[in-house]
Amino acid sequence: MTKNISFIFLILFIQNSVFSQQKPQKQNVNFALAIHGGAGTILKKNMTPELEKEYTDKLNEALQKGYDTLSKGGSSLDAVIVSIKILEDSPLFNAGKGSVFTADGKNEMDASIMDGKTLMAGSVAGVRKIKNPITAARCVMEKSQHVMMVGNGAEQFAVQCKCDFADSAYFFDQKRWNQFQKIKEKELNKPVLDTTGSIKPSEVFFKDEKFGTVGLVALDKYGNLAAGTSTGGMTNKKYGRVGDSPIIGAGTYANNKTCAVSCTGHGEFFIRSVVAYDVSALMEYKGLSLADAANEVIMKKLVSLGAEGGLIAIDAKGNITMPFNSAGMYRGYMKSDGKKEILIYR
Amino acid sequence: MTKNISFIFLILFIQNSVFSQQKPQKQNVNFALAIHGGAGTILKKNMTPELEKEYTDKLNEALQKGYDTLSKGGSSLDAVIVSIKILEDSPLFNAGKGSVFTADGKNEMDASIMDGKTLMAGSVAGVRKIKNPITAARCVMEKSQHVMMVGNGAEQFAVQCKCDFADSAYFFDQKRWNQFQKIKEKELNKPVLDTTGSIKPSEVFFKDEKFGTVGLVALDKYGNLAAGTSTGGMTNKKYGRVGDSPIIGAGTYANNKTCAVSCTGHGEFFIRSVVAYDVSALMEYKGLSLADAANEVIMKKLVSLGAEGGLIAIDAKGNITMPFNSAGMYRGYMKSDGKKEILIYR
Repeated sequence: MTKNISFIFLILFIQNSVFSQQKPQKQNVNFALAIHGGAGTILKKNMTPELEKEYTDKLNEALQKGYDTLSKGGSSLDAVIVSIKILEDSPLFNAGKGSVFTADGKNEMDASIMDGKTLMAGSVAGVRKIKNPITAARCVMEKSQHVMMVGNGAEQFAVQCKCDFADSAYFFDQKRWNQFQKIKEKELNKPVLDTTGSIKPSEVFFKDEKFGTVGLVALDKYGNLAAGTSTGGMTNKKYGRVGDSPIIGAGTYANNKTCAVSCTGHGEFFIRSVVAYDVSALMEYKGLSLADAANEVIMKKLVSLGAEGGLIAIDAKGNITMPFNSAGMYRGYMKSDGKKEILIYR
Repeated sequence: MTKNISFIFLILFIQNSVFSQQKPQKQNVNFALAIHGGAGTILKKNMTPELEKEYTDKLNEALQKGYDTLSKGGSSLDAVIVSIKILEDSPLFNAGKGSVFTADGKNEMDASIMDGKTLMAGSVAGVRKIKNPITAARCVMEKSQHVMMVGNGAEQFAVQCKCDFADSAYFFDQKRWNQFQKIKEKELNKPVLDTTGSIKPSEVFFKDEKFGTVGLVALDKYGNLAAGTSTGGMTNKKYGRVGDSPIIGAGTYANNKTCAVSCTGHGEFFIRSVVAYDVSALMEYKGLSLADAANEVIMKKLVSLGAEGGLIAIDAKGNITMPFNSAGMYRGYMKSDGKKEILIYR
């Protein structure tokens, strides 16, 4: 009997040693993050080496700051805020400072954040004066009983949250203004109502210069996932249009059980397809891997609808996927095992 | 050879006859619809027989008009509009005319609609002057390239759509005003920011008098599903709060492949749980029946989060389910096989 028990312990000991040796080889990522700066018709032929470097440097800076946050034991939510704020503060991306102009020459921004541990979420839409909408979204999540606030109401709440505000001069960017004038001219003769009955994503409608979003997904040392998305909306947009970025389930979703997702693309299709949550549902209900689930949604479902865009996603093991069906997507990732990439084109 | 082929045809003929005989016995519903007028702490002890009759009569009227629409060959989208307009025009329900008051004593309404055949969708949020927000949502779906419009922008678009407008006198209701005053007083001493860090659905927060929504789901003769939801929001709401009703995937979803769903309840939890689309995903990816999928979401997932509410849902065969985890839900259904029910309590 004693002999038998000793034998079992010996087996368990050997088994344990083998596994503890295998572990670091198989999976030594204990934190990771991925970033995007929008998907669209981003073509090398339209880019200068200088501009390419500007984009790559800024993505690298945001990624590195998020990485440092996680490395020091910060939460995935902290990393989302730190990294997205850097992209919001840059004129290169359509979010925060770089936001495009609405039809009345103003800026209207949307942002959302979700905590995969608690399934709490916060979002703001149609805000005009908040310097970093992602911080307002976090405040809605953490300091209110609500998930979504829009317009002036959201700004009143952001005052309570002590968010930084900025005036229209801060948000003014000559390049964005020129894009706006160009698009306004093109669209001037289009009818107010679309009475064709069939709405297709036209060449004019989906252009890199017209859409744009930034986003971050992260896994922290404690195994918690988070996702955040921020956008300046759509150039020349009218009628208080809201896209997928501030919609939990469409543009942003996070759940420790499955994944954290941030989307970018033709928002209307992303809302109708409930894209971010769909990736999670395919993993949870159909048992698909993160990559297969994201691929199914972006490369099959959205393509069949004629919709352009992409997403970044991370699962609880630190696997990362960044599929897109457009010409390009500003994107990158970093993992605690040292792997890192920053990419723009296909 | 010829003999063999004849034999196969004979088998096919018999099989076919058997199935065509079974069909009408197994399933003779070719159109159906279900309606709700909100879920919450609706208790018989708080109700008078007169008020109960008023609610039942109005639900019956809306259901019957939607049924007549489908019976005459109208689409499921037409039925959604016809029925919801009747509830929006009644002061009994928190939608349209009966909308509750925001903290600044105004009305702010949200509505959404989705077409299960095309997966097109439309929604408006935070509108103050549109008599029937559900008609504005349909116009966004059919006459714009967008899915969601908020605030003044949505109202400008509704003007283009020739939607009916109404002034604040139309939306004024003494009963709602008294509720508002009562709740305002209760909440006066509450802190602006919730700094407890944990947000629970409190007794005060979820009351029938504070929330309320109307919705309709329908299957038409052509096998097409549609869903619509309309709400006056939350009494004494601040900061441009938006609930689940105008969020596609959360409060409303329709897809001919699976089901049409309209939700009512504590909107924040419904957004975070992507409730309407979750029912569809459980059917599509996990193979659950309509009733099992809806039950899983309302009676298990939401209950585990401590969230109150319910939903109505219909599938492509005309099966209907109406689960809720609150004390009551104004609800009813009609099917072309003659089945009909209107219910309030558990």
